[in-house]
Amino acid sequence: MNPPDDSVLARLADTLASRRPDQGGDPARSYTAKLLARGPDAFLKKIGEEATELVMAAKDGTPDRIVAETADLWFHCLVALTHYGLRPEDVLAELARREGVSGLEEKASRKAP
Amino acid sequence: MNPPDDSVLARLADTLASRRPDQGGDPARSYTAKLLARGPDAFLKKIGEEATELVMAAKDGTPDRIVAETADLWFHCLVALTHYGLRPEDVLAELARREGVSGLEEKASRKAP
Amino acid sequence: MNPPDDSVLARLADTLASRRPDQGGDPARSYTAKLLARGPDAFLKKIGEEATELVMAAKDGTPDRIVAETADLWFHCLVALTHYGLRPEDVLAELARREGVSGLEEKASRKAP
Amino acid sequence: MNPPDDSVLARLADTLASRRPDQGGDPARSYTAKLLARGPDAFLKKIGEEATELVMAAKDGTPDRIVAETADLWFHCLVALTHYGLRPEDVLAELARREGVSGLEEKASRKAP
Repeated sequence: MNPPDDSVLARLADTLASRRPDQGGDPARSYTAKLLARGPDAFLKKIGEEATELVMAAKDGTPDRIVAETADLWFHCLVALTHYGLRPEDVLAELARREGVSGLEEKASRKAP
Repeated sequence: MNPPDDSVLARLADTLASRRPDQGGDPARSYTAKLLARGPDAFLKKIGEEATELVMAAKDGTPDRIVAETADLWFHCLVALTHYGLRPEDVLAELARREGVSGLEEKASRKAP
Repeated sequence: MNPPDDSVLARLADTLASRRPDQGGDPARSYTAKLLARGPDAFLKKIGEEATELVMAAKDGTPDRIVAETADLWFHCLVALTHYGLRPEDVLAELARREGVSGLEEKASRKAP
Repeated sequence: MNPPDDSVLARLADTLASRRPDQGGDPARSYTAKLLARGPDAFLKKIGEEATELVMAAKDGTPDRIVAETADLWFHCLVALTHYGLRPEDVLAELARREGVSGLEEKASRKAP
């Protein structure tokens, strides 16, 4: 299998944007449209829930579940970004910026673990 | 500047992989090497913490912080993937697979909110 | 209304203990028995979820929801304690011990925020 | 030693209330006063963090850490209650109310897992 192309997140974000209530997203037909229609608490709660599920999968050390739970977590982050009119490219740019500034270690100076 | 594409994640993952203790990562010089050397609880705890910070930033509705906290959260997910020998491409492939299966709505049938 | 008496948590823990599968708890009739029968991930996931809901209620500053979400969170902590054969009295003893040792400030020396 | 009762929580809440900035709490001398002075995000972040640590301790099945992390989590819940002018008795009353209404199972009808 080829690696996924470089725009999975951007393409997904485009689809999610079309699920916004103000873009005609239909809560009866789309999970994403339902989350967006219910408002921030609905999808933010999922971020806390999926983060916990990722932690549990990681403690179990099961690779398939780690990948699946990370996908769930990132998916709900993308839903949140969509709600706030933000894009995954903004997040990638921030990650690239940090890497450029300091070879990843800028964060260390900013916030110790 | 062109928008960043998902290869930011792959490049970042390459850097993180070089911070693994078994790849010569130096905990004294690198935040990531320190997290990886301390073991799963160190970086998994950060996933819970950064998820909460993202939720708080979202409740405040501050776009810059939402982007920064999402970057923090994804960064620590990448650290976890690195520890378990997984790659962001695995997560992107899973997201692409779901999108392909069902136009994003497969998840709805799998797990109601 | 009188304040709740001093053993709400202990009494609740007694009830929860009776919902354990090995004590005849019936998943078809009891939410707690169902959680306990499904195993740790079921109730641990709720701890992550309820913690997030408490954070959101707190950000909104709505007293009733803050109380209700704290109750939800503590309830699921009690379910977890039940599963592991632990008691809320163990947690209260630990809190009392810390208070006794150092007037609450022992924690400060142990773990800076 | 007698087992501690829930009045541990009330006594602890009294102490925490004295750490409020408007009650003369000194951030330089008290961990709690520092958290309260820094505002909600400081202690709410801890709730997310301690919830994750409890989940990890539970996955490891280590009783001492489960008790200690639950104590940490409840402690930071008490700090949050203090900030919002609420009391642990409010939470205990809510738990008692639910138990009275329906033998603990009221929650089941309210929110399926």
